[in-house]
Amino acid sequence: MPFEPCGIITLTTDFGLVDPFVGIMKGRILGRFPTARIVDLTHGIGPQAVEEAGFWLERSIGYFPAGTVHVAVVDPGVGTARAVLAAPIDGQLLLAPDNGLLAPLAARHTPEGIIRVELPRLERFGIRALSATFHGRDLFAPLAAELARGSCSPEELGDAAGVIVRAPLPVPRRSSEGIEGHVITVDHFGNLITDIEASELASLAHPHVELAELRLPLSRTYADVFPGEYLALVNSFGRLEIARAQSSAAAGLALGRGAAVRVRPGGEPIAGRRA
Amino acid sequence: MPFEPCGIITLTTDFGLVDPFVGIMKGRILGRFPTARIVDLTHGIGPQAVEEAGFWLERSIGYFPAGTVHVAVVDPGVGTARAVLAAPIDGQLLLAPDNGLLAPLAARHTPEGIIRVELPRLERFGIRALSATFHGRDLFAPLAAELARGSCSPEELGDAAGVIVRAPLPVPRRSSEGIEGHVITVDHFGNLITDIEASELASLAHPHVELAELRLPLSRTYADVFPGEYLALVNSFGRLEIARAQSSAAAGLALGRGAAVRVRPGGEPIAGRRA
Amino acid sequence: MPFEPCGIITLTTDFGLVDPFVGIMKGRILGRFPTARIVDLTHGIGPQAVEEAGFWLERSIGYFPAGTVHVAVVDPGVGTARAVLAAPIDGQLLLAPDNGLLAPLAARHTPEGIIRVELPRLERFGIRALSATFHGRDLFAPLAAELARGSCSPEELGDAAGVIVRAPLPVPRRSSEGIEGHVITVDHFGNLITDIEASELASLAHPHVELAELRLPLSRTYADVFPGEYLALVNSFGRLEIARAQSSAAAGLALGRGAAVRVRPGGEPIAGRRA
Repeated sequence: MPFEPCGIITLTTDFGLVDPFVGIMKGRILGRFPTARIVDLTHGIGPQAVEEAGFWLERSIGYFPAGTVHVAVVDPGVGTARAVLAAPIDGQLLLAPDNGLLAPLAARHTPEGIIRVELPRLERFGIRALSATFHGRDLFAPLAAELARGSCSPEELGDAAGVIVRAPLPVPRRSSEGIEGHVITVDHFGNLITDIEASELASLAHPHVELAELRLPLSRTYADVFPGEYLALVNSFGRLEIARAQSSAAAGLALGRGAAVRVRPGGEPIAGRRA
Repeated sequence: MPFEPCGIITLTTDFGLVDPFVGIMKGRILGRFPTARIVDLTHGIGPQAVEEAGFWLERSIGYFPAGTVHVAVVDPGVGTARAVLAAPIDGQLLLAPDNGLLAPLAARHTPEGIIRVELPRLERFGIRALSATFHGRDLFAPLAAELARGSCSPEELGDAAGVIVRAPLPVPRRSSEGIEGHVITVDHFGNLITDIEASELASLAHPHVELAELRLPLSRTYADVFPGEYLALVNSFGRLEIARAQSSAAAGLALGRGAAVRVRPGGEPIAGRRA
Repeated sequence: MPFEPCGIITLTTDFGLVDPFVGIMKGRILGRFPTARIVDLTHGIGPQAVEEAGFWLERSIGYFPAGTVHVAVVDPGVGTARAVLAAPIDGQLLLAPDNGLLAPLAARHTPEGIIRVELPRLERFGIRALSATFHGRDLFAPLAAELARGSCSPEELGDAAGVIVRAPLPVPRRSSEGIEGHVITVDHFGNLITDIEASELASLAHPHVELAELRLPLSRTYADVFPGEYLALVNSFGRLEIARAQSSAAAGLALGRGAAVRVRPGGEPIAGRRA
């Protein structure tokens, strides 16, 4: 499916919302493309947490219409020679630094030719004279505006990227013992979201989840247990999640990104309530 | 006043802004209704704090034009059989789970027939196959888009709801001693906002407010006392509020939602300054 | 350059995003000007931190197109007789209380006649009956809507302001020893942003920066040092900044707004790594 812009631009950054950094990116977009419809996907990515941004983008783009431009700026290498990628995926377009951020999308979707952007080609749009530290403002925002208003196609920006930088986290490991994965992000409610897919769980008989001292069967919804109890479920993004009903699993267990999670088949399910 | 959509949709949730949940809801809205104007009312409702969401919605809708669709997703019962309500109020339309959230609006306004949404009727819009845990994305966002673009009227979605779930908090109690109420929310500045109405205060001669060890007369504005002093005032939403000038009353008093507040008539006003 | 509105309104406040205050301002804008494009510049200004708001506005407006209306509501004197200013600057228009907020803009740009708004003149727009505590909703939002939709020009709102309130912070001091300035804001990453301009640094030979026990040469980008090391650089807003690579300088040094920073010429640069 070739990329045909629909006028929507989403922004994903680790900039937070305390400073005007995101607002300034929007000013630069609207200056070039006054009718852009800009959506904040999230600015709450952990500082420099490239793998968290990649995870959420991969899980999110399916909820946007074809023609959306998604800009992701989580960029610890800003100011170095790291490349910039433009990746058409399923009729949408992703712009991000080549630092592993796009690896989850490239692994699960079939990108139609990821482009490595050649910066000199942006001079025809007056995109140059970059600061060394804020490419979100100086490069990604104006470039997204030009692509979203149809000034050029991704293919005009450079050649095929070939190999891109890999994701910084290992993928879940499967063995006769079950599946070993990791917490990839902690959401606002303190739910621990893992990198283990629903489809992988489906292949285990009576799976139960091991995390810290917990051993949990799979529940269907947060209301399946009493308030304060822990539970494991396949969340609305198709991933294994450990939650605590009407409370925070992350706070209760003192666990966060990177924590190990195991799923084992069979055995007697044990209730999630802690002593 | 029948509901005539104006294209504005507001969102009120307890999702926070750290994750892409709100951005994804906007993607789903724009996919169905590309020219929707979406306003974040707030995503900072306390987790599962249905009464806080109801309070703010009731106080906020008057500042939006007729035809606005307000979506509120604070939904601890997501995935259970709890109903979904569509409530036309003063020419606007509210969508929320039937869990007490709409009770403050139903009590203070005259809803023109609250509708209990029958989910099978949404299938003509392709709204189905719900996840068990994210109805904001799978039900409320697409339904709001269809209502805001005029695809159907609220009445087509179901029958009159009759009785709806009541608010979880008691209303203020009036006696010969005065008024007893509660802190219903703490704002960003640490101001303690109560459920006591300006009109109730007006009936007391020389009212003074008792909270923790404070006894405060009514002030008019934050600048009426010195920085660091406590004060009580009728805030810009017509509610009794306890504040601390250029500081946080909530932090200074270590009080929050649910704290008891009393107003008594007469007596000598005592200064708000603490020893 | 006379002010010709382009339909964009930006909002800068200390309201935070936990409450519906910002959403309500947007409701009031859209009620008067349905096609307004509203951009949140930032709502994370420290409570009542007028100098922080002025700093960010001064550094930000250049990234917005001509015709933008910028509304800034950081307003500890709300409800008192403090004036309201409308300042056309470089083809854009700023609205703010007269409390020092606009002082950095007035100092560095050439305002084309700052206007002191006469509130009775707003009655023709139905802007009156103000609450004592929320002028963002009752005055600034509707006034911005009228100006951005072209209902009136700034000059119709009042007479020239003459002297406006000065900034609350001293400007950097220059001596034969070097430059003494202050941290003016701490960003989301914990970077300490100072009031010292790149142009002032340029006049010193081999400048090095002194802060707490650190003595730092100037780096070009965050990736110039190893993760965890401190560095000083001219940031993307042209200001001296002290950062810690992939970490928080503010947390590591336990410093924040107002901290003293010195820059001295010459001498042997000393590495930023701490023992």
